[in-house]
Amino acid sequence: MASPGSGFWSFGSEDGSGDPENPGTARAWCQVAQKFTGGLGNKLCALLYGDADKPADGGDSAAPRGSARKVACTCDQKPCRCSHTKVDYAFLHATDLLPACDGERPTLAFLQDVMDILLQYVVKSFDRSTKVIDFHYPNELLQEYNWELADQPQNLEEILMHCQTTLRYAIKTGHPRYFNQLSTGLDMVGLAADWLTSTANTNMFTYEIAPVFVLLEYVTLKKMREIIGWPGGSGDGIFSPGGAISNMYAMLIARYKMFPEVKEKGMAAVPRLIAFTSEHSHFSLKKGAAALGIGTDSVILIKCDERGKMIPSDLERRILEVKQKGFVPFLVSATAGTTVYGAFDPLLAVADICKKYKIWMHVDAAWGGGLLMSRKHKWKLSGVERANSVTWNPHKMMGVPLQCSALLVREEGLMQSCNQMHASYLFQQDKHYDLSYDTGDKALQCGRHVDVFKLWLMWRAKGTTGFEAHIDKCLELAEYLYNIIKNREGYEMIFDGKPQHTNVCFWYVPPSLRTLEDNEERMSRLSKVAPVIKARMMEYGTTMVSYQPLGDKVNFFRMVISNPAATHQDIDFLIEEIERLGQDL
Amino acid sequence: MASPGSGFWSFGSEDGSGDPENPGTARAWCQVAQKFTGGLGNKLCALLYGDADKPADGGDSAAPRGSARKVACTCDQKPCRCSHTKVDYAFLHATDLLPACDGERPTLAFLQDVMDILLQYVVKSFDRSTKVIDFHYPNELLQEYNWELADQPQNLEEILMHCQTTLRYAIKTGHPRYFNQLSTGLDMVGLAADWLTSTANTNMFTYEIAPVFVLLEYVTLKKMREIIGWPGGSGDGIFSPGGAISNMYAMLIARYKMFPEVKEKGMAAVPRLIAFTSEHSHFSLKKGAAALGIGTDSVILIKCDERGKMIPSDLERRILEVKQKGFVPFLVSATAGTTVYGAFDPLLAVADICKKYKIWMHVDAAWGGGLLMSRKHKWKLSGVERANSVTWNPHKMMGVPLQCSALLVREEGLMQSCNQMHASYLFQQDKHYDLSYDTGDKALQCGRHVDVFKLWLMWRAKGTTGFEAHIDKCLELAEYLYNIIKNREGYEMIFDGKPQHTNVCFWYVPPSLRTLEDNEERMSRLSKVAPVIKARMMEYGTTMVSYQPLGDKVNFFRMVISNPAATHQDIDFLIEEIERLGQDL
Repeated sequence: MASPGSGFWSFGSEDGSGDPENPGTARAWCQVAQKFTGGLGNKLCALLYGDADKPADGGDSAAPRGSARKVACTCDQKPCRCSHTKVDYAFLHATDLLPACDGERPTLAFLQDVMDILLQYVVKSFDRSTKVIDFHYPNELLQEYNWELADQPQNLEEILMHCQTTLRYAIKTGHPRYFNQLSTGLDMVGLAADWLTSTANTNMFTYEIAPVFVLLEYVTLKKMREIIGWPGGSGDGIFSPGGAISNMYAMLIARYKMFPEVKEKGMAAVPRLIAFTSEHSHFSLKKGAAALGIGTDSVILIKCDERGKMIPSDLERRILEVKQKGFVPFLVSATAGTTVYGAFDPLLAVADICKKYKIWMHVDAAWGGGLLMSRKHKWKLSGVERANSVTWNPHKMMGVPLQCSALLVREEGLMQSCNQMHASYLFQQDKHYDLSYDTGDKALQCGRHVDVFKLWLMWRAKGTTGFEAHIDKCLELAEYLYNIIKNREGYEMIFDGKPQHTNVCFWYVPPSLRTLEDNEERMSRLSKVAPVIKARMMEYGTTMVSYQPLGDKVNFFRMVISNPAATHQDIDFLIEEIERLGQDL
Repeated sequence: MASPGSGFWSFGSEDGSGDPENPGTARAWCQVAQKFTGGLGNKLCALLYGDADKPADGGDSAAPRGSARKVACTCDQKPCRCSHTKVDYAFLHATDLLPACDGERPTLAFLQDVMDILLQYVVKSFDRSTKVIDFHYPNELLQEYNWELADQPQNLEEILMHCQTTLRYAIKTGHPRYFNQLSTGLDMVGLAADWLTSTANTNMFTYEIAPVFVLLEYVTLKKMREIIGWPGGSGDGIFSPGGAISNMYAMLIARYKMFPEVKEKGMAAVPRLIAFTSEHSHFSLKKGAAALGIGTDSVILIKCDERGKMIPSDLERRILEVKQKGFVPFLVSATAGTTVYGAFDPLLAVADICKKYKIWMHVDAAWGGGLLMSRKHKWKLSGVERANSVTWNPHKMMGVPLQCSALLVREEGLMQSCNQMHASYLFQQDKHYDLSYDTGDKALQCGRHVDVFKLWLMWRAKGTTGFEAHIDKCLELAEYLYNIIKNREGYEMIFDGKPQHTNVCFWYVPPSLRTLEDNEERMSRLSKVAPVIKARMMEYGTTMVSYQPLGDKVNFFRMVISNPAATHQDIDFLIEEIERLGQDL
């Protein structure tokens, strides 16, 4: 295997031009410089070489990356510290990088070249003239490349190529016209913070190995609890791997609060427990109940009104029904921002019922929690301050990179007693610092990824007012879309009235269906419209928006806007694109 | 708030030197160049300026980052594309970055400056003359800085400062003398891959939004199953957020396999289930049982021999005992590489017992799984091919950045039927591509972080043989440590014999205790030795190694080696350091 110092990476000296003290430096510099400056690099090189067109292959971003650019080092420092080295990656392997002896120079060059690939991707992501996705079917992608893993290493030129290939077929989730999921956008400060998190490469279980991150989690969760409205921000919480797990935590803690013996004795020791959530709520409630041994049959789905909001009277009726059977209602999970309609359950009414029947009130605000940052919109979550626990995913409406989901709990200490196992190899009780910062034992996980830093840094960079501006803008865009299509020919809204969140749900009805009677055949044909338009969107790569059926409504588009890059023009574009792709159906 | 184009970031033209076509370019170039080249940047600048010492403040890495370096742009392109701009971050905010109009230049400069901070940290991480940690007590750190979150945004200069501050107090988990956890080291290809993952910022639930990553997960899990020894690599699996969750998955799937009705009906519908694992196993088994409604009392801890290996006869005895009581043994979790001793349970004997009693056999190889990559050491996991499920954390022994944990399941389709909830908003059945690649419904999570790419890219870069070399080297280092201390004055081994994994467990006995009788007082004094030495290690920042009590053994050091940067000299250093810091105790 290649090792450093044997000639396949070295310095600019062949031509002898440039820096009089270090012949060849200038040429190497040109190569480095050009990568960062696009066309202007040529000008610098012209200064050095007296020729604006040379070197034509010197690292132009359009040139194949990783191609051999060998130039010999003439410096006599040992170890040589000429960090402007150009590297011939075809002869280098991972073993030549740090911590290899003399690995510093190839490492810096390699990481910088990776970064260059990433920066190009970032810039392209925001460029409306690029595709949102260069879609290929799974079999095509599998056949087009050899993705298999082998015994022998590949050289770093190949590794850089893989990075490029991977991004070529990736979906540009930051693209201004990507509306497919609740999590869209690519925040630059969040991205920087996530790179830092990767570089720090540590684990959240103890202060010992994550001092700053543990403190930042403490500060950030406290701030979130203040915003929820719990006095002084008191309470507890954790960043968990996604909203589904956060909701599962809530269920776990609610059960433990009512029957702490369940931790040792299991469900066999407790009566039949029943959870309640709306028929529009997220599937993770049922998934959690299945996992926790409660069973999906014990999750009762409460009816919603036509806007997708839980009907409190139905909740109370079902609670009474369950109690009559001798079962124990232990959890109501209200939703603040349902996945499809963006509906907000009436939290105050739910809180009254939970209080009356002494049931744990959870609010799944994974999607809607962001609205708490907006003075204009936070009334939609009135009553959240009465919840016992709240799921709130900053990686959705607040645009924090994936993943960043918080579970907030009003009662302090409950998570710890529910989950702790006192592993003495990790949570030693005779450490020299304040052990209250070793928070790992309250988690379901052992090792836990650092998810807080990107949120914290974004918050510092934007301020609460910055999140507010983002959220107000997205809601305004949703209203803009709603206002355009509500009376536009060929559109039917799924429910009446202004959207409460950024979800705008509608059918696009192609001309051929507009005159049909409202019968089963029309529904059947209508159900095929959204999937075809979506497939065409992906094949053209112009935009992406999600669709689904719900209840008795056949496939309809669910537009959501969380992408800070989106503008009114992008909304206009979406409408035009739907019509362009769907008019022949 | 500041906006681009109003004069606080611009181009080098004040001096008029340099590029004749674009006056001032050279000065700006110097500033950019110097940041990447340290001292050599001066040489390039000298070429341009005729003075090797100028500009002294032009971006030298020791200079305060983000200080104002305003130079006016003279280019007449609109929009100006001079990407070699120097930026005055004190007047810039997050809102000036992409997707802001004209945000490209400040964005590239900002991300490049962040990257520069990260590269410096990477280089320092491997430098033995730097501290592993600059330790501060929680209250100190809380008081020294204002970490609070506010309404108003901070400028990008402050944001860059936060990045530096965060890393200043971070623990250098890649440092050659960091031995504190099972996950140590910082792999350069893995790091690059994690940066790319952050940049792609997507979610694993569907092929639609993670085409390449979904395919790579498929390829990688299949390869891991082949290595485990399942014919043709068939089976199932998932990357989960850590070994504890992987183990919980195993328990969940084992329960479902035996009693599929538990998904709907909960634990009330099934008999009392009992899981078995060794007394040295990881605490996540009990944590999982508590969460899943099984209860910690239903996890029976099987006795271990003096090396920490499960005693099969005790396992069989306890299974029979449980069956006699009418309970149902449903899971045996054997450990391949225990957390403290690094012990490998006798998997073949366990497999025979599981077969005999028709019990799901899980192998928690979170720590030991890496040894499967080594032809020399994989015999220690003989029998793993008979397991029904295996936890294997590449983020531990294989040095993949956190987090990367796989749960592998021998029977295909079981995960899907156990966990699926058919959410129609996500897993539409009328999509235009092969739906078997929409794997999200087999997860407990909804959104799921992309954990596969760093493993896949590292595997391509190192090859299986590269992982093998890493593992063989770490085990050799552990043996080197063992050979030095087993007969050295002042050391007592916790168990006899060569380590099976890289765990080396020992007491350091300071001179004052060496002549004491082996009684309670000595034990009590010995128990205080490791915590004090560890505290001193952290305060000096020279090295870090873990300690804990276990059973009747008072606090002892558990040395583990997974760090590819560690050498024989670092092992020697550790021993010297323990003696330096502990001799007065």
